[in-house]
Amino acid sequence: MCPSKTPDGEQRGWIIPIGGAEDRESRRRILKRFVQLSGGRDADIVIIPTASRKADTGSRYEELFQRLEAGRATVVDFVDREDGARDDYLRRLETATGVFFTGGNQLRITTILGGTPAARLIRTRNAHGVHVAGTSAGASVLSEHMIAFGKEGSSPRAGSVRLAPGLGLTNRFIIDQHFRQRDRLGRLVAALAYNPYAIGIGLDEDTAAFIGPDNTLEVEGSGAVTVVDASELQFSSMADVSQSQAVCLLGLRVHLLVAGATYNLHTRIASPGSLVTEKT
Amino acid sequence: MCPSKTPDGEQRGWIIPIGGAEDRESRRRILKRFVQLSGGRDADIVIIPTASRKADTGSRYEELFQRLEAGRATVVDFVDREDGARDDYLRRLETATGVFFTGGNQLRITTILGGTPAARLIRTRNAHGVHVAGTSAGASVLSEHMIAFGKEGSSPRAGSVRLAPGLGLTNRFIIDQHFRQRDRLGRLVAALAYNPYAIGIGLDEDTAAFIGPDNTLEVEGSGAVTVVDASELQFSSMADVSQSQAVCLLGLRVHLLVAGATYNLHTRIASPGSLVTEKT
Repeated sequence: MCPSKTPDGEQRGWIIPIGGAEDRESRRRILKRFVQLSGGRDADIVIIPTASRKADTGSRYEELFQRLEAGRATVVDFVDREDGARDDYLRRLETATGVFFTGGNQLRITTILGGTPAARLIRTRNAHGVHVAGTSAGASVLSEHMIAFGKEGSSPRAGSVRLAPGLGLTNRFIIDQHFRQRDRLGRLVAALAYNPYAIGIGLDEDTAAFIGPDNTLEVEGSGAVTVVDASELQFSSMADVSQSQAVCLLGLRVHLLVAGATYNLHTRIASPGSLVTEKT
Repeated sequence: MCPSKTPDGEQRGWIIPIGGAEDRESRRRILKRFVQLSGGRDADIVIIPTASRKADTGSRYEELFQRLEAGRATVVDFVDREDGARDDYLRRLETATGVFFTGGNQLRITTILGGTPAARLIRTRNAHGVHVAGTSAGASVLSEHMIAFGKEGSSPRAGSVRLAPGLGLTNRFIIDQHFRQRDRLGRLVAALAYNPYAIGIGLDEDTAAFIGPDNTLEVEGSGAVTVVDASELQFSSMADVSQSQAVCLLGLRVHLLVAGATYNLHTRIASPGSLVTEKT
């Protein structure tokens, strides 16, 4: 389940995790940008409401995208594992320019879609330039290592987070959403402490990380994206503590990015981006 | 209200902010260490319950310290500003080996004691070797710049925190308490964003920072101390945003320290301390 290879001469599509509760009524900056990226009036968006148990989740996004003048936006609802191999669903994904995962429970997405032809196709299509966005639970599943569940509001404890394989569009980062609203820094940091290779991305509500083909992340929305870089970690007690004990982690690098700011997932360099340009 | 100068040949007393809700029943590691530092059977502890509005706060700590076999532990309750100049109270502070501020509201301490002879005396005595501890609100007041109040659970916003002058035993750090339990990272970071000179110290409940005469901080208790070092900050949008906007801060250094780990407030170097020694 490694990310699919992008063929020479092509560009990977954008990967767009959203922190949940994105603005759907007024400026709708995040959804609007997703529609524009996907082609605007030529966009062909597949909405996957599999994470949600509510019957109208998909149709509500259909309306939202139509009001934003997306060319086409229709629901493809995978409700059991057999759906992951349905020809009509796979054909729909073949022609899409954008894929959107709604919120709900991320384990519903991975248990239903994990390992199916549909999951493989989404990875391949992303490698060929199709943009894939997800909000809340739909954001968590985008990466290779997914936070399945975890405790909120405490310092990182060895047992405070559980990882599961996600859809694997990328393995560069681990995502958590509703970040400051639900106080999830502890569990994100605990996830990184297992293996500091990945970069932690904590998304506030109504805030998205637009991750381009060059792995530069740009922030959109009203809140902040918290980037936790554990690559310079001097010390971690993770391997030596019991489940309920607080973990000692020395040398984390943290950036709080708002709309306009960028972070390069390759070089691990943060930049104020257009925040500085706007000032001058 | 700068910290008092420590005379040549003398050592400043320890400064001991505690995150609140310290264990008072079982191992009582924090209170025990404070009693021992203050002289154990020779300790003479002054308890200042001024932050609290509960009548029995002081007497409960008297009992606690007596059960821990402190030589002497009595309440000095400053209830109005005139008390800050009372001879009997000042004499009590003159002979104390340790001073302990209870929890409550930090603005009660600063409005009643700020600028009084008692506040000056506590600073001088600390410079001469008397140890000063405080829990919860009592921890917040120890430093020069005190978080008076602020919003919880959000990313740092320009208006999410209000500072007030504290008792000023030190100006090296800004303290916040009940840290992870009340999700106060955002407001601590906002406080640092005003001026990255200070080091942010976020204390979990039942967790204390024992800050020695050499400005090395040692952690005691069951939780973590979050140290936020903004000295390498690359960018802050604090000066350019409106009160409710999220602040962009790039390049924070964060350490999560547990019991045994240390942090030097001069060199800004974190160390696992006895965590490594214990392993071998």
